[in-house]
Amino acid sequence: MMIPQDYPRVIIEAVEPQVDGGRFPIKRVVGERVVVSADIYKEGHDKLAAVLKVRKVGEKRWHESPMTQGDNDRWHGEFTVAAIGRWEYTIEAYAERYLSWVDEITKKNVPGANLNSELLEGLVILKTSAALAPGAERARINGIITAIESALAAGEQQGAIDLGIGSVMRRSMASCPDRSEGYELAPPLAILVNRPITRFAAWYEFFPRSQGTMPYRHGTLQDSIRRLREVKAMGFDVVYLPPIHPIGHSFRKGKNNSLVAVPGDVGSPWAIGNEHGGHMALEPQLGTWDDWDQFVATCRDLRIEIALDYVMNCSPEHPYVAEHPDWFFHRPDGSIKYAENPPKKYQDVYPLNFGTSDRAGLWQEMLKIFLFWVDKGVTTFRVDNPHTKPVPFWEWVIGEVHRRHPEVIFLAEAFTRPKMMRLLAKVGFAQSYTYFTWRNEKEELTEYVSELTSGEMKEYFTGNFFANTPDILPPILQYGGRPAFIVRAVLAATLSSVYGIYSGYELCENAALPGKEEYLDSEKYEIRVRNWKAAGNITHIITRINQIRHDSPALQTYNHVRFLAVDNPQMIAYAKMTDDLSDIIVCVVNLDPFHKQYANLHIPLATFGIAEDEQYQADDLLSDERYRWSGSSVYIELSPTTKMAHIIKIRRW
Amino acid sequence: MMIPQDYPRVIIEAVEPQVDGGRFPIKRVVGERVVVSADIYKEGHDKLAAVLKVRKVGEKRWHESPMTQGDNDRWHGEFTVAAIGRWEYTIEAYAERYLSWVDEITKKNVPGANLNSELLEGLVILKTSAALAPGAERARINGIITAIESALAAGEQQGAIDLGIGSVMRRSMASCPDRSEGYELAPPLAILVNRPITRFAAWYEFFPRSQGTMPYRHGTLQDSIRRLREVKAMGFDVVYLPPIHPIGHSFRKGKNNSLVAVPGDVGSPWAIGNEHGGHMALEPQLGTWDDWDQFVATCRDLRIEIALDYVMNCSPEHPYVAEHPDWFFHRPDGSIKYAENPPKKYQDVYPLNFGTSDRAGLWQEMLKIFLFWVDKGVTTFRVDNPHTKPVPFWEWVIGEVHRRHPEVIFLAEAFTRPKMMRLLAKVGFAQSYTYFTWRNEKEELTEYVSELTSGEMKEYFTGNFFANTPDILPPILQYGGRPAFIVRAVLAATLSSVYGIYSGYELCENAALPGKEEYLDSEKYEIRVRNWKAAGNITHIITRINQIRHDSPALQTYNHVRFLAVDNPQMIAYAKMTDDLSDIIVCVVNLDPFHKQYANLHIPLATFGIAEDEQYQADDLLSDERYRWSGSSVYIELSPTTKMAHIIKIRRW
Repeated sequence: MMIPQDYPRVIIEAVEPQVDGGRFPIKRVVGERVVVSADIYKEGHDKLAAVLKVRKVGEKRWHESPMTQGDNDRWHGEFTVAAIGRWEYTIEAYAERYLSWVDEITKKNVPGANLNSELLEGLVILKTSAALAPGAERARINGIITAIESALAAGEQQGAIDLGIGSVMRRSMASCPDRSEGYELAPPLAILVNRPITRFAAWYEFFPRSQGTMPYRHGTLQDSIRRLREVKAMGFDVVYLPPIHPIGHSFRKGKNNSLVAVPGDVGSPWAIGNEHGGHMALEPQLGTWDDWDQFVATCRDLRIEIALDYVMNCSPEHPYVAEHPDWFFHRPDGSIKYAENPPKKYQDVYPLNFGTSDRAGLWQEMLKIFLFWVDKGVTTFRVDNPHTKPVPFWEWVIGEVHRRHPEVIFLAEAFTRPKMMRLLAKVGFAQSYTYFTWRNEKEELTEYVSELTSGEMKEYFTGNFFANTPDILPPILQYGGRPAFIVRAVLAATLSSVYGIYSGYELCENAALPGKEEYLDSEKYEIRVRNWKAAGNITHIITRINQIRHDSPALQTYNHVRFLAVDNPQMIAYAKMTDDLSDIIVCVVNLDPFHKQYANLHIPLATFGIAEDEQYQADDLLSDERYRWSGSSVYIELSPTTKMAHIIKIRRW
Repeated sequence: MMIPQDYPRVIIEAVEPQVDGGRFPIKRVVGERVVVSADIYKEGHDKLAAVLKVRKVGEKRWHESPMTQGDNDRWHGEFTVAAIGRWEYTIEAYAERYLSWVDEITKKNVPGANLNSELLEGLVILKTSAALAPGAERARINGIITAIESALAAGEQQGAIDLGIGSVMRRSMASCPDRSEGYELAPPLAILVNRPITRFAAWYEFFPRSQGTMPYRHGTLQDSIRRLREVKAMGFDVVYLPPIHPIGHSFRKGKNNSLVAVPGDVGSPWAIGNEHGGHMALEPQLGTWDDWDQFVATCRDLRIEIALDYVMNCSPEHPYVAEHPDWFFHRPDGSIKYAENPPKKYQDVYPLNFGTSDRAGLWQEMLKIFLFWVDKGVTTFRVDNPHTKPVPFWEWVIGEVHRRHPEVIFLAEAFTRPKMMRLLAKVGFAQSYTYFTWRNEKEELTEYVSELTSGEMKEYFTGNFFANTPDILPPILQYGGRPAFIVRAVLAATLSSVYGIYSGYELCENAALPGKEEYLDSEKYEIRVRNWKAAGNITHIITRINQIRHDSPALQTYNHVRFLAVDNPQMIAYAKMTDDLSDIIVCVVNLDPFHKQYANLHIPLATFGIAEDEQYQADDLLSDERYRWSGSSVYIELSPTTKMAHIIKIRRW
């Protein structure tokens, strides 16, 4: 083994935050802080200094800020990321020769000590640093150096020491540290920064073809434009559209997923492609590209973001099938394999073969689809089943899109093995569907949400909590009625800063195929025209929840959800708050949609900065009821016949 | 970004054990197991298989063993390391095409299904594997393939399936897996394997110059040879010698570290070098190289290992000072800097400058010293203050020694910042001094020993628990008298599998410099001749403890020390056991050297494999008292006037 010639002179270890030893970037949104800590130490007894260095990838210059030393060789610093795109950060640490000398000479300065030699050593250090100093500072240091030399010549040891370790010199030396005995951590650690809407948004999913007002008439983009205003009025930030492309004919599915379609059946939008085109075409019945452009313009006016479904399926009539048969899987008889999840068969859909010998052709085409729709005004993609494609494809294609359009947001629809869900987030998906939809009990909600928002996952994984989807009508909604719809909306909207519902939720639609989580008469296979003012709707509650979220900085953070003690297993309580405690929200929810529940809620006064004997304001933002509380124990009662949840803003007087 | 051409087809993550993401090796001793686990998964629905691969570094061929799948995509495997040196291991995982096919066709095989296409696909898989199979297996597979084809031709679908998925075919296919859709983790992870004595040894430290029998006469190696037999009789495995080199004259320290030596003062052995030589010379008063060779031969006969102190200090008379003045630190006046720890001064010692411009010269010389003494029969080095030298030096020099002599053991004497202690172990020190010497309370012992033996530190850090050293006479020994000496010996010898004492411990020597942890009349500065049979000695107890350790496989493992509940804060209890529960040891110790203490001890019956209502044997190996116990609660009484500790072997009837 060779003698190392240029080894790190300072040890920098265990840097946080980082994901998998720096293999993947951490994620932030614009304006968020990155709080960094690291173990920094060195052999021997030198004093150390450390700086945190950050820059946008591509910039030459690092922006530096000092780190401070805590217990047990742990150092701390922080910075804020100010623009979208890829950033990088690192740490430089070095032996602080001047401060080490100050420490040494201070310790040695006992009565009678001859410190001539130490003072001469100090002068060497001062002169080295002076050479590094900017002009004005250099002059100041050189002035003091001259004074020290005079004092030394005059035998005034104490005077020389005072000049060398004095506050003026310390301030000057801080401006020109000699970092030659140091180390800069390499390679730097990456940060992927996106827009705030990545971490704070309410999503609303609707089928454009269902937005008409006449039953059985195919809705259009123009109908959807009208609908957008209502979606905006409810307070949603993102409208998510299932595929809007032409739909295949062969093996088209009929109503309720029946194997045989009858004339007039519109088919599943997920079976993409026919004679009108494929992934870069519009279903003609929805309208023209002009209609699409109007839809986009209206969204822009309303400040609604469009999320489009990205689905790597092709119908047998998709142009790719004829043009690139090698992009598909083949059976021994030469025919193309349709999708299967044995014993289920999906004859209307051909999956793509990502391992095809023409991988370059297929992967580039997949990229082209993303770029096409970005050009058409789409900034967010909900990606269908990413866990059935190779992960390196996602890392590549998201990287390629981001290189051109760092503002694009990818949502992974992967209800799969937990580790795959995490890996997809690590390689670039900004948001992920979660298991929230099936977590109903207090204990499982507490455990799952803590895992998402308090562990290392929060550095790279943002859970988009959907209360329902076209594929999932969970049992709690089928059986729990209107109270359950209210409860699940409150939980989704306050446990995560990013949540969504699929249209019909506000009408408490809950008719399911018997024994399944599928909707009866699902929109996936037919057009559904709804009366949005139907009795029993919870539109006003959804609207109120979204308003509360927009007014509350605490609910806009995807940070540590702090669960609170409440002595009834049917009730759950938790707090979200800003770092400075200027906004503190406490949610209390009755998880039992059938019965009244009551409990004592424990308020962690110290955490909230409230004294034991202090009165404080507790305003329920859902009901507009105002309370004045004191002490840490509060009696709460929630009932299906009155209210199922509190969203309480806590304020000191 | 380029489209990745050869990406991992299977994901292998979070492999354990590993140290700092594979940057450093894990450590084992010969015959120990390595239990490996990893997250292994892939996109889609393929069945996977994984093998654990291990080899000695330099071998071509991997030794493989299958891994098994546990919960949540965690896979498990293990192997044993059979020889000292560097090993490496990795994991190869792959999509198991045959088993995936078995799974698919089994799911699809419902009444009326036409599986002709699937069977043809299966034949492709079988033929691919047959080509990979060894001769006999290939013939068997080809026979079945022919039978399947006949069945297919005859329209016997079920018969063809039965042949394809039957147990004969499964067994054959297991012998020739097609791993083309797979990934082998790279680079492999390293293992440093050393001799069992690395992790199981009792150390005894003595000064050869004190082994004479006449007061004031300088002891010799011949005296030490006589003493070796007594050390062996006490059951020690390693004899550790402070430096045995010539000692400097300038600023030689007098008795009790006085600044002025008087004629006859022998000086500190840590101030190495004079006109007789330096680190590769023997102090002439100790004897000749012939005497040394006899000492080594006696150790070999007695199966005692020699540990030599390795001290990077030079006296002003060390040959290096004249030959390599550039290896030292210089003051502004050109003189060489002596060692300091302000305000303390060590004028008899010059530290070496590891950052010297002649780094190659200095570092190679330091290596030469190690190799010289290995040639002279030394296999273990206790390294003095490694934390004041650059860590890359240690990684380099230990690597160089191990490349030639993998059997050499390095003990780090670094009482310093915890993270530095860990890093020194990571870069190659097999053993480390610890803070055990100052941990006396139940809570601090529990916390510290758990950190050392149960966390990730156990993968690379072996704590050598010294009860005293020539530098450390801890307060508990100064004030606690003979009971404290017994307690601390039992704790050291049973909490860690590697422990040591410095001679005089067995005589309960406890005279200290007032207000310090330093011995009065310390052997560091003078010759001390002792009466080894002095009244009150605990030689027989030390001997018994060492005997118990040699008889107990449980006490020979440096694994998880399991602390047991005992309802008295002055008492501590813990168990060590072998994996197969064939040896279970329970220690109970009274931490209060002044008073009788009693408590109820909780025996974790289930952990020990004992039924609630079962009687079991509990033999105190220290006192030879035998008990029959039942139930989980046992009354224990320990007293300074009778006994201070139990070392109990638990046995089922």
